[in-house]
Amino acid sequence: MKTIQAIGEFGLIRQLQEKIPLAGDDCAVLPGGLLLTCDPVIEGIHFLPTTPARQVGWKAMARNLSDIAAMGGTPRYAVVSLGLRPATPVRWVRQLYTGLHAAAKKFGCEIVGGDTAHTRREQFVVVTLLGHAAKPVRRSGAKPGDIVFVTGKLGGSFASGKHLTFTPRLREGRQLARYAHAMMDISDGLASDLYRLVESSHVGFAIDSAKIPGKLPGALTDGEDFELLFTVAPRHAGKLRKKYSEIGRVIKKPVVLLDGQPLEAHGYDHFAQRR
Amino acid sequence: MKTIQAIGEFGLIRQLQEKIPLAGDDCAVLPGGLLLTCDPVIEGIHFLPTTPARQVGWKAMARNLSDIAAMGGTPRYAVVSLGLRPATPVRWVRQLYTGLHAAAKKFGCEIVGGDTAHTRREQFVVVTLLGHAAKPVRRSGAKPGDIVFVTGKLGGSFASGKHLTFTPRLREGRQLARYAHAMMDISDGLASDLYRLVESSHVGFAIDSAKIPGKLPGALTDGEDFELLFTVAPRHAGKLRKKYSEIGRVIKKPVVLLDGQPLEAHGYDHFAQRR
Repeated sequence: MKTIQAIGEFGLIRQLQEKIPLAGDDCAVLPGGLLLTCDPVIEGIHFLPTTPARQVGWKAMARNLSDIAAMGGTPRYAVVSLGLRPATPVRWVRQLYTGLHAAAKKFGCEIVGGDTAHTRREQFVVVTLLGHAAKPVRRSGAKPGDIVFVTGKLGGSFASGKHLTFTPRLREGRQLARYAHAMMDISDGLASDLYRLVESSHVGFAIDSAKIPGKLPGALTDGEDFELLFTVAPRHAGKLRKKYSEIGRVIKKPVVLLDGQPLEAHGYDHFAQRR
Repeated sequence: MKTIQAIGEFGLIRQLQEKIPLAGDDCAVLPGGLLLTCDPVIEGIHFLPTTPARQVGWKAMARNLSDIAAMGGTPRYAVVSLGLRPATPVRWVRQLYTGLHAAAKKFGCEIVGGDTAHTRREQFVVVTLLGHAAKPVRRSGAKPGDIVFVTGKLGGSFASGKHLTFTPRLREGRQLARYAHAMMDISDGLASDLYRLVESSHVGFAIDSAKIPGKLPGALTDGEDFELLFTVAPRHAGKLRKKYSEIGRVIKKPVVLLDGQPLEAHGYDHFAQRR
């Protein structure tokens, strides 16, 4: 009897893809350019019992906003599903909502509803976002010869606390939607997420380690960076180099090379290891 | 320091209403008649570790479909957020999806995406549905003099297993949308849910216990019936009596009377008791 742990998160996703036609994008793209996405934040995994509730709320909203950013979209409406222990102070829930609201409001999104239920042990927050994009950027459009960029800095998100306070790259995502052939947010680590682009775009990547904006190996593997990873045609690279880090180029062979050597997809896997 | 348990689910909802303008409806109503709703299903609360995964999937989808039904709407798209233990067999997840799909497909809804994360203890399934309704029926429209109806039978949902296999009342909800002044689905028990209509519609209810379709007191308090509770003008009551149970009428005073006596709101409260 195979367990999820045995096949890992990617294995599970592949198994589920047989059952549901997931494009593997950060959001589902619906008719009319509507975007729909949901992501859980779970106690003990994505936050600790001691994490301030306001930061838990910010993170729960912001990681979903980051998925909208990754499609070049604009968030509109959110619903929030909470699993709470009965002994949780009401104040904790109010502060959680303060954080949820702060992130939503900052990016023009409205919390319109939700549901609460009780859980015996781990608390969780699932935010679902509805947004839209005139021209959603998918993971599948990377072309050989494209230049590969990332926004911001990578690595150390847990150590620095960035994973609780990061700014979702919505502004950048919308601007990049005009240029990007493929885009996604870096949630499981650059190494792991590059392989997701390999699977979606059927291309490979030649990455220059010296150009990665962050300390190795953490910048490759820590995850929860919530920066954008995207590819553009070479003619657009010039103007983007001023704001973003060029880290390599797209190649035909479906593999990730780091300084010419094959790189393992050793980012964060939800089921193969424990954080 | 007040806990959630101390103020109960209704108390918590009231506290959150100060923070978020929840209408208290089964779905959030967005411009264009879009409906958005999400509801968690948690191990140990809504299903047991021994519940067949296919039934867990059915229930997780169907209770959200029931929320769309309660607005007189039609479901369109679903995303699924899973919290799974690493040791869970892949087969369990596949069967979960079989159940999710079966319920979605039966009611014309498409699963378009989702996310999985690992949890250490309780597994959970959060389904978010996007639907639409030409004229959404809210909880706030009940008028004194209205006749009160319910669909199907009430009570005993846990004992009979109905809570895992019920049919969401989508067909009925869409038909009733033409007549109903107020509508909701019965998830926490008739007694408790009547008080939600009191809060939303600022009216009261005079219920005749002999007309309740189910054994008392379970039909009032068991919860997870997923039947529809609705009110209509008297002129529409005649044709509806053939298919649904008339259980009472709407009164001015904001209270629930059972056979003329005030009824306590003693349905299921997620935080005040344990199932």
